[in-house]
Amino acid sequence: MASGGEVMKNKQVILKHFIDGAPKESDMVVKTSSISLKVEPGSNAVVGKNLYLSCDPYIGSRMKKFEHPDFSSFKPGSPLEGFGVAKVVDSGNPGFKKGDLVWGTVGWEEYSVIENPEKLFKIHHTDVPLSYYTGILGMPGITAWAGFYEVAAPKKGEYVFVSAAAGAVGQLVGQFAKLMGCYVVGSAGSKEKVEILKNKLGFDDAFNYKEENDLDAALKRCFPEGIDIYFDNVGGKMLDAVLLNMRLKGRIAVCGMISQYNLSQHEGVHNLMNTLIKRIRMEGFVVFDYFPQYSKFLEVVLPLIREGKIVYLEDITEGLENAPAALVGLFSGRNIGKQVVLVARE
Amino acid sequence: MASGGEVMKNKQVILKHFIDGAPKESDMVVKTSSISLKVEPGSNAVVGKNLYLSCDPYIGSRMKKFEHPDFSSFKPGSPLEGFGVAKVVDSGNPGFKKGDLVWGTVGWEEYSVIENPEKLFKIHHTDVPLSYYTGILGMPGITAWAGFYEVAAPKKGEYVFVSAAAGAVGQLVGQFAKLMGCYVVGSAGSKEKVEILKNKLGFDDAFNYKEENDLDAALKRCFPEGIDIYFDNVGGKMLDAVLLNMRLKGRIAVCGMISQYNLSQHEGVHNLMNTLIKRIRMEGFVVFDYFPQYSKFLEVVLPLIREGKIVYLEDITEGLENAPAALVGLFSGRNIGKQVVLVARE
Repeated sequence: MASGGEVMKNKQVILKHFIDGAPKESDMVVKTSSISLKVEPGSNAVVGKNLYLSCDPYIGSRMKKFEHPDFSSFKPGSPLEGFGVAKVVDSGNPGFKKGDLVWGTVGWEEYSVIENPEKLFKIHHTDVPLSYYTGILGMPGITAWAGFYEVAAPKKGEYVFVSAAAGAVGQLVGQFAKLMGCYVVGSAGSKEKVEILKNKLGFDDAFNYKEENDLDAALKRCFPEGIDIYFDNVGGKMLDAVLLNMRLKGRIAVCGMISQYNLSQHEGVHNLMNTLIKRIRMEGFVVFDYFPQYSKFLEVVLPLIREGKIVYLEDITEGLENAPAALVGLFSGRNIGKQVVLVARE
Repeated sequence: MASGGEVMKNKQVILKHFIDGAPKESDMVVKTSSISLKVEPGSNAVVGKNLYLSCDPYIGSRMKKFEHPDFSSFKPGSPLEGFGVAKVVDSGNPGFKKGDLVWGTVGWEEYSVIENPEKLFKIHHTDVPLSYYTGILGMPGITAWAGFYEVAAPKKGEYVFVSAAAGAVGQLVGQFAKLMGCYVVGSAGSKEKVEILKNKLGFDDAFNYKEENDLDAALKRCFPEGIDIYFDNVGGKMLDAVLLNMRLKGRIAVCGMISQYNLSQHEGVHNLMNTLIKRIRMEGFVVFDYFPQYSKFLEVVLPLIREGKIVYLEDITEGLENAPAALVGLFSGRNIGKQVVLVARE
């Protein structure tokens, strides 16, 4: 709880009502309330000034009424929440002081009171863009790292396929795989993204799934020898086609199924028999399980960024009032690279 | 190759033509040819007198024209093949001598010439029924052992569900799980099988899937806390219902999908999103990968049999001429326990 001290206007992105399908701008409203920038005496909370907000597919899920072991639904009438980068304005927690930079879960608003700051990560390295802590150095980065290295257990020379490859997670998985000496192909939803995958991100090949009538044929063209690792961000028909093209002892790291999130009835996957014939391991994972390894992750990824061995594409939308449109665009694949909202400069 | 020496009549079960769906008796014909019981000089082959033949679902698959990394189709006009127990009649291989008992792949016939005897397993322990080497001490036994202990990685107290639980593999998985201190429920296709699971095989609970209108509801009734391990022998609708009931970090060992083998279009599985939400690992395996561990397996399972800690149900059909009917019955679930054909007594 914050009380006393300077009271500021606080612009917020409010959920109007629970949604059914993909989020629309009309499901949210930007309102201005007020907030005290001082925490109450004795409180453990931190008040943060939000600098960047991260647009992630799971935010769309939390706008629905549903049950999940890791998440609760947002409350209609309250601001959305998501990962963000913030600067500490006041702190009742001895671990944080005014001026600290942190990343973690914050509200979609200019200032947030963070009641459980123990879950925040402190930002110690500021020689890289701060927005990276919503992406390559934040949740999507750990997701790509854990899913690829821990779940998919890659070996040099293996054939790797990544769907939604130009997205926040996919672009990193592809680059991790290249650094390991794998052959990497990505799929994306536009010609422009395909060009970026091939020319900027170092993928060996890429295709636009919207232009392929037959996903099985597209995969056979790109992987005449088959696929060892599929990093699945989309599920559905793509997963079904991939199953036909997996190699013996292949691994499918299930990171997301964005093609399915907004369907009232999920598509059927017909080719699971291949898990048996080809001894495939298919494994879902959730990034939170890997948060305790964050410092290990940073040790690997920070040097790669500093040495220019890995690039990270961001699609930065400026202004909290444009956050609803940025989130909505995510579900139609409008963004190229990680979709971030710049709320305020330091 | 066998030549010279005693020439015997050799009854054989011949594949008449490639099949499409489930095997019918009319797809096979029992014929009598002749065979020499002596191997040619310089040959590496072994001639075996077949004692028991094992009826397994994969035999139906080999009657079709199809590609598989481990199997080839049978040849129309030639005898079927499968696992069996045989007595060596003559041997050109120094590792085998007349009178040795072996198990491995043989023809569906009275006598077989085995061209690659290196793949046979010698039978050293005859204080247990010889037919067990088609089941608990043969391929289905290693399947149950590897799938449960190696693939499903069980822990004491976990909730285990086995489909086709009264079959050759399922009955063992359930007993292994009970020995480990798990809570075990099985599904089967008749009232009689359900009674056997509960009263003879020590399952904590069991249900007849044919009598359940709603498999999800049946699983929720049997597993109010959810399922940690699903040993899948059937695939399809059951797998889909199980996915709704898995617990966090659950494991699905995909051993078989018998409900799908004879469909021209495999059923769609709609609930794979749960692999993600619940971090489920789903892994297919094939028993051949575990054959090198056979002696380790025997060390575990032989004492369990001798001490009466594990029981094994067999459904023994007498006479090679009845083998086609026994095989066909497998696909309608007619057998209770492991379906074996007794070809000859020692």
